[in-house]
Amino acid sequence: MNMTITVAVAGASGYAGGEVLRLLAGHPEVEIGALTAHSTAGTPLGEVQPHLRSLADRVLLPTSVEHLRGHDVVVLALPHGASGEIAAQLPDDVLVIDLGADHRLASAADWTAFYGSEHAGTWPYGLPELLLESNPHGAPAEGRPGDPDTVVTRQRELLAGVRRIAVPGCNVTAVTLGLQPGIAAGLIEPTDLVAVLANGYSGAGKALKPHLLASEGLGSAQPYAVGGTHRHIPEIRQNLRAAGAQDVTISFTPTLVPMARGILATATARLAPEHRDATDAQVRLAWEQAYEAEPFVHLLPAGQWPTTAATLGANTALVQVAVDRAAGRVVTVTAIDNLVKGTAGAAVQSMNIALGLPQTLGLTTEGVAP
Amino acid sequence: MNMTITVAVAGASGYAGGEVLRLLAGHPEVEIGALTAHSTAGTPLGEVQPHLRSLADRVLLPTSVEHLRGHDVVVLALPHGASGEIAAQLPDDVLVIDLGADHRLASAADWTAFYGSEHAGTWPYGLPELLLESNPHGAPAEGRPGDPDTVVTRQRELLAGVRRIAVPGCNVTAVTLGLQPGIAAGLIEPTDLVAVLANGYSGAGKALKPHLLASEGLGSAQPYAVGGTHRHIPEIRQNLRAAGAQDVTISFTPTLVPMARGILATATARLAPEHRDATDAQVRLAWEQAYEAEPFVHLLPAGQWPTTAATLGANTALVQVAVDRAAGRVVTVTAIDNLVKGTAGAAVQSMNIALGLPQTLGLTTEGVAP
Amino acid sequence: MNMTITVAVAGASGYAGGEVLRLLAGHPEVEIGALTAHSTAGTPLGEVQPHLRSLADRVLLPTSVEHLRGHDVVVLALPHGASGEIAAQLPDDVLVIDLGADHRLASAADWTAFYGSEHAGTWPYGLPELLLESNPHGAPAEGRPGDPDTVVTRQRELLAGVRRIAVPGCNVTAVTLGLQPGIAAGLIEPTDLVAVLANGYSGAGKALKPHLLASEGLGSAQPYAVGGTHRHIPEIRQNLRAAGAQDVTISFTPTLVPMARGILATATARLAPEHRDATDAQVRLAWEQAYEAEPFVHLLPAGQWPTTAATLGANTALVQVAVDRAAGRVVTVTAIDNLVKGTAGAAVQSMNIALGLPQTLGLTTEGVAP
Amino acid sequence: MNMTITVAVAGASGYAGGEVLRLLAGHPEVEIGALTAHSTAGTPLGEVQPHLRSLADRVLLPTSVEHLRGHDVVVLALPHGASGEIAAQLPDDVLVIDLGADHRLASAADWTAFYGSEHAGTWPYGLPELLLESNPHGAPAEGRPGDPDTVVTRQRELLAGVRRIAVPGCNVTAVTLGLQPGIAAGLIEPTDLVAVLANGYSGAGKALKPHLLASEGLGSAQPYAVGGTHRHIPEIRQNLRAAGAQDVTISFTPTLVPMARGILATATARLAPEHRDATDAQVRLAWEQAYEAEPFVHLLPAGQWPTTAATLGANTALVQVAVDRAAGRVVTVTAIDNLVKGTAGAAVQSMNIALGLPQTLGLTTEGVAP
Repeated sequence: MNMTITVAVAGASGYAGGEVLRLLAGHPEVEIGALTAHSTAGTPLGEVQPHLRSLADRVLLPTSVEHLRGHDVVVLALPHGASGEIAAQLPDDVLVIDLGADHRLASAADWTAFYGSEHAGTWPYGLPELLLESNPHGAPAEGRPGDPDTVVTRQRELLAGVRRIAVPGCNVTAVTLGLQPGIAAGLIEPTDLVAVLANGYSGAGKALKPHLLASEGLGSAQPYAVGGTHRHIPEIRQNLRAAGAQDVTISFTPTLVPMARGILATATARLAPEHRDATDAQVRLAWEQAYEAEPFVHLLPAGQWPTTAATLGANTALVQVAVDRAAGRVVTVTAIDNLVKGTAGAAVQSMNIALGLPQTLGLTTEGVAP
Repeated sequence: MNMTITVAVAGASGYAGGEVLRLLAGHPEVEIGALTAHSTAGTPLGEVQPHLRSLADRVLLPTSVEHLRGHDVVVLALPHGASGEIAAQLPDDVLVIDLGADHRLASAADWTAFYGSEHAGTWPYGLPELLLESNPHGAPAEGRPGDPDTVVTRQRELLAGVRRIAVPGCNVTAVTLGLQPGIAAGLIEPTDLVAVLANGYSGAGKALKPHLLASEGLGSAQPYAVGGTHRHIPEIRQNLRAAGAQDVTISFTPTLVPMARGILATATARLAPEHRDATDAQVRLAWEQAYEAEPFVHLLPAGQWPTTAATLGANTALVQVAVDRAAGRVVTVTAIDNLVKGTAGAAVQSMNIALGLPQTLGLTTEGVAP
Repeated sequence: MNMTITVAVAGASGYAGGEVLRLLAGHPEVEIGALTAHSTAGTPLGEVQPHLRSLADRVLLPTSVEHLRGHDVVVLALPHGASGEIAAQLPDDVLVIDLGADHRLASAADWTAFYGSEHAGTWPYGLPELLLESNPHGAPAEGRPGDPDTVVTRQRELLAGVRRIAVPGCNVTAVTLGLQPGIAAGLIEPTDLVAVLANGYSGAGKALKPHLLASEGLGSAQPYAVGGTHRHIPEIRQNLRAAGAQDVTISFTPTLVPMARGILATATARLAPEHRDATDAQVRLAWEQAYEAEPFVHLLPAGQWPTTAATLGANTALVQVAVDRAAGRVVTVTAIDNLVKGTAGAAVQSMNIALGLPQTLGLTTEGVAP
Repeated sequence: MNMTITVAVAGASGYAGGEVLRLLAGHPEVEIGALTAHSTAGTPLGEVQPHLRSLADRVLLPTSVEHLRGHDVVVLALPHGASGEIAAQLPDDVLVIDLGADHRLASAADWTAFYGSEHAGTWPYGLPELLLESNPHGAPAEGRPGDPDTVVTRQRELLAGVRRIAVPGCNVTAVTLGLQPGIAAGLIEPTDLVAVLANGYSGAGKALKPHLLASEGLGSAQPYAVGGTHRHIPEIRQNLRAAGAQDVTISFTPTLVPMARGILATATARLAPEHRDATDAQVRLAWEQAYEAEPFVHLLPAGQWPTTAATLGANTALVQVAVDRAAGRVVTVTAIDNLVKGTAGAAVQSMNIALGLPQTLGLTTEGVAP
């Protein structure tokens, strides 16, 4: 690898691809290489991503291995099902970062149940702050660094030096960050979790569907994938098992609300019976310890609640936790920018870690607010 | 009472008062009488409610019993704590409708715990669709109509002829309508309920608070009153007990999202153990039976989910229910316009019932969409 | 015609068609007949227009003369180019109301220049408040009521008894209502007009185009049809000529802003040289006189400016005018709901007039705000 | 000056102050010093600016010269009228950057006419891209660099080494950038300009006023300061005179639309009579030449129109121009983020220039979109 890292982006005309480019354009060690797209190949990027001024004159190439080859890093921002084949043709020493779902799930059964196709295999998982109790998913069999007796406490440690990364789903990141400290500490029950999310529209991508029109979305809130059908559910369960849960059940409902970006995840769990008498401070301590050393995940001061605006454009997750004694539940609220910490920021952060760079390089914690 | 019903509105400069006036202006049997306000007294209504063109030249009077007296109906759209004193000075045969919280709760202990003041007493409760198993709250001791053996099945029956009505809280209406059919049918457990709501800003009123500024709200989602502190909680519990629950515990989290109006309530409950094997159709049947005769509450066809836009300006509640087998939970989603079915529409509907008019008079089921 | 007027709506699945249905559902003299659509034919209306609860079970028929025939009124909410053929096959005594552009323009040359196809002919124009100086367009040769010497002062008079109506374009209505009093009074120059509009997305219809996605529209303002290309320009010019201008030139720029509905039109004109010394009150008088008798067009008190929210769902136009002495221009601001006074409300109002009903029947002046 | 530049910010709790901090937090040569505020003094910044994570623990100090002294740069984000006194007490070698209006206008008469108080004097003007024909305002008498015969072509050249900077008004920047190329080239008449703007709410600041509530703004468009009363008008006139106009008259109307940030300015001007026959390309050339070397002002390819979303968080201005032959007007549309290129970005860019740093340091051209 050169001093300067060359990065190609496949799927540069979509929202996720565009956001990766926005972040990479400000990354001090990166040189942006080939940009590829499908239907917009041949078009200058400025026509489809008019906000990326420094790259406006770049012409989109057709998505093919030929154009992606020869870079240090290849970011795949493609519909699910498309990344496996391309990755297979890229050399093993190229860092391939998949923003799609194909390589997130360890369980082929889960994959098939929720996606209906054959499982493409599992890659190291790009959520550095994921708490790990033992034998986490995402640990490549041959890649577990160091002595097997080492206590690996966060997914970050498993990302050093890897050359394949599966970036988490945006909703998954929000729910996992909210709940995992309580799970890992045994404070909350991992069964009967309930999460309801307020989601910005960019999470749905650029697909031309009637319910995604501005006329429909402005002034309205609408749920989708209700009743246990959302594809992010098995990934949440997988993460919380990694954090220490034996079994995980979760009711998960995303709702589209009139904002372009942002996820506000309200995720609740029952206090574990043995911790019913835990004080608020004792409960809070689990979240403090989980995130006190994390540069991108902030537990807000008690009583201050996250807003998505505060995370806009930043790789920040804001988290708050409270105990509802009457309901017997711990309530967590997590705010992220779905396209940054939820997608492209996670990709850049994981890339930094894999390549041995400071994980914060090219990323900001300052949101664009108001 | 004349053929034409005269209605005075106290608090006509606020959002709730304005919405009552919007509906009354289209009510065929109503003549709008005195309009009173506090800080804007002396101002033409058109300056503070520029959307109410037919009333633009009406001058706001100071809120006092003197101005409110002499009408058939008085609607109180006042801050909580203010309505009791005024109502006490109005004759018993005047229909007084309180949009505030003062007379909703049957339990003085609940009132004091959540509002911190002395309880003002309980009035008949203006949610006509509330299912009643037995001995419901809101039944004035002397006013239970007919034979005590009569099976009263809905709150509507208790509103005929009353002269005091406490209009429900907007969040309460959404959550109650979503969950009560499953509670009444014994299909879901009334404990460990979880409700998360997406709320439009008008629910917070016209108070000048920083977090209610457009700059803060646009493009952001923010929770409030998290962790069991919201004042609507005891009212939800009371309603679901009326519908048949022995005890009710609920985790309740409202979140402000960027829309002026609307509530989308996602409320979930565990399937009762004895009904784990109920088919989707069997579960759905409880909701169908609860609402099939209701003009304002619509169970959508299976698979179609409510949106708040579809209820804008209408007295409609849209409800959907699904069973998440993996999570063991029934998920309900309810959409209302917080100012109509959530406040002013409920007032007009209850007024119609109390006065022996068709309950739908002056109300529409057609939302203003998109 | 029966006591009850039967109305069929072609194009019932679109935004304009849906809004006509919303208004007709509350019209006391109307019975809604056949509803037709193109790609959604065979679907219950509730699936495509979930806000129209009272019509939810109506099944959409294919758009054909066969289904539209046999009603007193047929409303055509179709893409331009489609209405002429259908109207030609409907009996002359059926009132046909075209929401599209086909029959608005008197000049075949204008039509061809802006639409590129053959002109379909001119129908009486459905803007009752249009001021007429003499020999207005839209007057059917045979239909001019009464004595030819009668001074016809408003388009309303030309609509009585007609059986074909061309409903104005929404932007046209806003700009015309703002400027015409000054034109008719000779106070402002009809050349070098400048209009810039803030437009809600529903004006663009349900077409699935990338720039109409919620992700693109939320948090953004974007112009379209800049530089004299918008098809509403010849119609504005035609209206202002009817109001008395010899020649009209106008720079017209619509901009999409993040709201579902509404048009806020800022339209400015130079003070006519001979009126440079007119006082503010003298200028204002022209607007007062134009609209003092109009039930749906309101000149606000001096200093109060229109907002689109105040017109939501109502057939109201709010107008304000001010003189900018330093700039030498009169500035008018007009707010309407593009789907009501801008489209469907104008249709119903014109229908009422054509059929001899009170023009306000089934229409409201009360907006749904906030 | 040290290698690291220390910067204090007065008014750190407001929107403008917060945005300066967001940019400075990412500036490689800056160390953020004292943060001061008025009513929130004593509070950690994280409570009032929760999006500025890296500064969350900084405690706001009271705004006083004592706390501001001792820094290389002091940024004043204060209400107008407050900066003069503070600046007078800061040493001459401290770079003082005023985000407020106090020192923008060269004409004391203009100041008094629009602000009603005594003029505080004129500082070098922080719009580096302002075209200068001759003897521009903002040139400090003693500070004109080099030979008096030098042709100074842009305001940038007058900012090198200065120690006082008046940052332009946000609306002024948008309108000036749109129109000045045509003015400087003599292609358009500087009289009878018309500008209408779509404005995000953050431009109105954090003041608690009813019309700035989210309930009022969501779903609505509303004009303000109509009819020649807006305080930005004399500043626009001053700029266009600097660019070469003899006299300037402009009709200027801002309208609040439902977005937190952004200005979309549609500014039109009559083609100068002697250039009526100029081709589109000839007109366009003036804009190309004005901005081809500018890193932050982009003339979009012909036919592509600016959107505010594309500038969010970036120091970018997007400009487009078209000729409307029928109207005889050139139409320009300019999009900026009011808080970045409109305020804080302009401050940082000007600071860089004044201090001899690359002007782009700490600023991005990549907007946060969608």
